[in-house]
Amino acid sequence: MTSLLTEAEIEARLREIGARRYHRLHPFHHLLHGGKCTKGQVQAWALNRYYYQAMIPIKDAHLIARCDDRQLRRIWRERLIDHDGRAEQEGGIARWLKLTDGLGLDRDYVVSLRGLLPATRFAVEAYVHFVQEKTLLEAIASSLTELFSPEIISERLEGMLKNYDFVSANTLAYFVNRPPQADRDSNFALAYVKRHARTVQTQQAVFAALEFKCDVLWAMLDALHHAYVSPKQISPGAFVPSE
Amino acid sequence: MTSLLTEAEIEARLREIGARRYHRLHPFHHLLHGGKCTKGQVQAWALNRYYYQAMIPIKDAHLIARCDDRQLRRIWRERLIDHDGRAEQEGGIARWLKLTDGLGLDRDYVVSLRGLLPATRFAVEAYVHFVQEKTLLEAIASSLTELFSPEIISERLEGMLKNYDFVSANTLAYFVNRPPQADRDSNFALAYVKRHARTVQTQQAVFAALEFKCDVLWAMLDALHHAYVSPKQISPGAFVPSE
Repeated sequence: MTSLLTEAEIEARLREIGARRYHRLHPFHHLLHGGKCTKGQVQAWALNRYYYQAMIPIKDAHLIARCDDRQLRRIWRERLIDHDGRAEQEGGIARWLKLTDGLGLDRDYVVSLRGLLPATRFAVEAYVHFVQEKTLLEAIASSLTELFSPEIISERLEGMLKNYDFVSANTLAYFVNRPPQADRDSNFALAYVKRHARTVQTQQAVFAALEFKCDVLWAMLDALHHAYVSPKQISPGAFVPSE
Repeated sequence: MTSLLTEAEIEARLREIGARRYHRLHPFHHLLHGGKCTKGQVQAWALNRYYYQAMIPIKDAHLIARCDDRQLRRIWRERLIDHDGRAEQEGGIARWLKLTDGLGLDRDYVVSLRGLLPATRFAVEAYVHFVQEKTLLEAIASSLTELFSPEIISERLEGMLKNYDFVSANTLAYFVNRPPQADRDSNFALAYVKRHARTVQTQQAVFAALEFKCDVLWAMLDALHHAYVSPKQISPGAFVPSE
């Protein structure tokens, strides 16, 4: 039996979802951050994750296109700037490409998306469609995985630098810039969701939106694990590591 | 019989469409700029045109959401900034509301959209849907009415200031800021269209897109003329001038 929650209870419930379902808990991340991946596995991760990065501003533009509220559009516009940058060499996508460059992947190959696992494509596109098709409140709530990302990013930065000789601080520039943006964005989205989810039905929808988004990120790691860790069954056409 | 055109021929054809179909030629604009409108008619124009202004960033966000190209997204993002501003009192929509304020319209009423003519709503929404549903090239081409806007804006600014004692330079701030933005935007879009329309089919689609957009603007003035000039048949529920 569900009842109407206070704002504090909404936040507690969202954080509980993160504690149970955020992809920080995925076995692939334990391998990645713990230095247990081969270079080929790290490449596969960065290559597949590139598609997620590349689609984020498209997802955010869809969200902006659904906002009647100028202020909300202006605030969300910052995310476009964070990801696309103010110039070609700036922004989150450009920094992610520094990572794939640093890992020795050919940039044209990465950007072509030819090496993606199909499950990566489906998961990322499910996220974009969710933001186009659900309510604006659910679309905003689905961004709330950012609440949990500063922690995973600091683990990743530390673990990858310590454990992989093929990874440099310069290569990991993406992860240095990202946490303050994620904090700012998730604080806004959290406050928005708490203020606007005022019925049992919308509160449940908000929780489902965050669970859905956790599923998206989790499914991407499941696909990587299946293809590149165990049982190492790479989908036809997907990236095959050379080492 | 249609043949493949050079870039110069494409531009000439686009300018020819503007010369024949841009709403500068509409009888309502002759009345408006020539000082022949009543205050109520000017109010009706500003009120209805507000919806077009308000939907432009939504249209542009849809367009950004369709771009795979980061550079194109960055360039188009400037339009979001122009219309939504960097703060609540800035940007094209805020300046349009200074116009409706200056004309004595209640701001809540304007923003509520309750007074719109249905045909205004349908025309504006047809434009947003066009940008969502047609090719990216056609979506970009549909913005090319901006090629012709600096001229109409200077006529409007001069004509309205000279002819209406209820209009001040401050009220018309929108039109002072707009021409350099329109020049920058239309130069980019024109170059894009000339470079990317490389088949007979896409060239024809580009011309049709500009004709469509001219139709949108023209239909908005037809609706105003019908309701407020002749035969003065105001749709049920739409704005009724008090003077």
